[in-house]
Amino acid sequence: MRGAEEMRAFVARRAFGLVPTMGYLHEGHLSLVRRAREECAAVVVSIFVNPLQFGPGEDFGRYPRDPKRDAALAKEAGADALFMPEVVELYPEGFATEVRLRGVEDVLEGAARPGHFAGVATVLAKLLNIVGPERMYMGQKDAQQAFLVGHMIRDLNFPTRLVVCPTVREPDGLAMSSRNAYLGEEERIAATAIPRALFAARDAGSTEPEALEETVREALTSEPLIALEYVSANDAATLGPVEPKTGEILLSLAARVGKTRLIDNVVTKR
Amino acid sequence: MRGAEEMRAFVARRAFGLVPTMGYLHEGHLSLVRRAREECAAVVVSIFVNPLQFGPGEDFGRYPRDPKRDAALAKEAGADALFMPEVVELYPEGFATEVRLRGVEDVLEGAARPGHFAGVATVLAKLLNIVGPERMYMGQKDAQQAFLVGHMIRDLNFPTRLVVCPTVREPDGLAMSSRNAYLGEEERIAATAIPRALFAARDAGSTEPEALEETVREALTSEPLIALEYVSANDAATLGPVEPKTGEILLSLAARVGKTRLIDNVVTKR
Repeated sequence: MRGAEEMRAFVARRAFGLVPTMGYLHEGHLSLVRRAREECAAVVVSIFVNPLQFGPGEDFGRYPRDPKRDAALAKEAGADALFMPEVVELYPEGFATEVRLRGVEDVLEGAARPGHFAGVATVLAKLLNIVGPERMYMGQKDAQQAFLVGHMIRDLNFPTRLVVCPTVREPDGLAMSSRNAYLGEEERIAATAIPRALFAARDAGSTEPEALEETVREALTSEPLIALEYVSANDAATLGPVEPKTGEILLSLAARVGKTRLIDNVVTKR
Repeated sequence: MRGAEEMRAFVARRAFGLVPTMGYLHEGHLSLVRRAREECAAVVVSIFVNPLQFGPGEDFGRYPRDPKRDAALAKEAGADALFMPEVVELYPEGFATEVRLRGVEDVLEGAARPGHFAGVATVLAKLLNIVGPERMYMGQKDAQQAFLVGHMIRDLNFPTRLVVCPTVREPDGLAMSSRNAYLGEEERIAATAIPRALFAARDAGSTEPEALEETVREALTSEPLIALEYVSANDAATLGPVEPKTGEILLSLAARVGKTRLIDNVVTKR
């Protein structure tokens, strides 16, 4: 660079990007890191399996972990720094604060996993304050999580812009998830019925919420290895019911494939 | 300044200080502004009567307001900027986030005013994010408020240091409070029994919690215009019960003088 203006523009682009993860990184995470790399001067990837967002009986203890591989993958994708705190660092004795989102935290995944989103909101408030990023990157696969975190950022005036990136899928359509590692061979094949059901509903022509849900339900009841927990069509902008003024519909579900609980969603114009 | 080092030291002292208030400023607030002025390169005073921290039937509607006088007083004491947002600016439609402190928010003032401290913590999280101060100044008069906000700052990793400043009192001992403006002439005289009772307990020699509380109770029952709501001796470091390892005791009370609810406290070594 030779011009002062050019240099100033370069220096002004000093945004920090944060990609918060629970580790066991896959292409979904790495797509976030690469997007942050394009848009930010420095990229921080946090890896923290957050106990607050796991309920009793959930998979906190056996959640897959591979910090060495994660570090290599994150650096390769463009991370400048990894933040891998211990549980006691983020939640020392006497920790008492909880960030909640009345109403929006209790539907869909929040109804199925009580306390889950308070745990998510609380740890992300902490990470935002520790890293102080101008931008934070999250995936559309966890649609309600992205919705809630964006809501919290606005409500609490965090000086951070949330960038929600598209779900990354395996060639056969299954949404990338660290929990896919739990799937046995047959379960892994059966799991492809989940995105197929969502795409079929999206592409069937109707945008009536009941019709969308019913298409998914029908497609999945014929799969012996899959137990649908819920499927729900909601206004993507509010997570409330689909209304006349709804612009986009979030069609989301949770299902068990064997013992593994997976979530997925598609968004469709009304 | 002539030396580069000296200049660097001056520039490095660019801390922002925030003094959050509900306005109707008195010497207590102004002592915070002056302290911030001494320690910070720039001082922001926020004035916002926060509806979230008032319960139904409390005095939100009639809380005293005088923004013009406040602006003049704050500037005179050293404020560089006033932040006086509208309610709809801080709580737009759809606002849903709540910051809570499990356990510590439910005792003392929190027990008497359910939801009060969630309102305090939520608005202060917002102000911290909007102003981004290196230091924030609060008064010891609202001891539990200062305790909770310090707790929240640590728990959520806000990059702000909380500076708690001594209670400022009228010449006759009454703690400065915007709510003193509610007191009639006789009530104003009667109210001086509150600090007298607290000082008497502190100076009576015993540090047994029951003895401290009893001294206050006895001193105030003889005052016909005063109705004690609670008096409580707690570990100042935890707000829990006084224990063998307690270093300092917070002796705090709430009382009604006529219709006006006042709070006050003293801290005493064990």
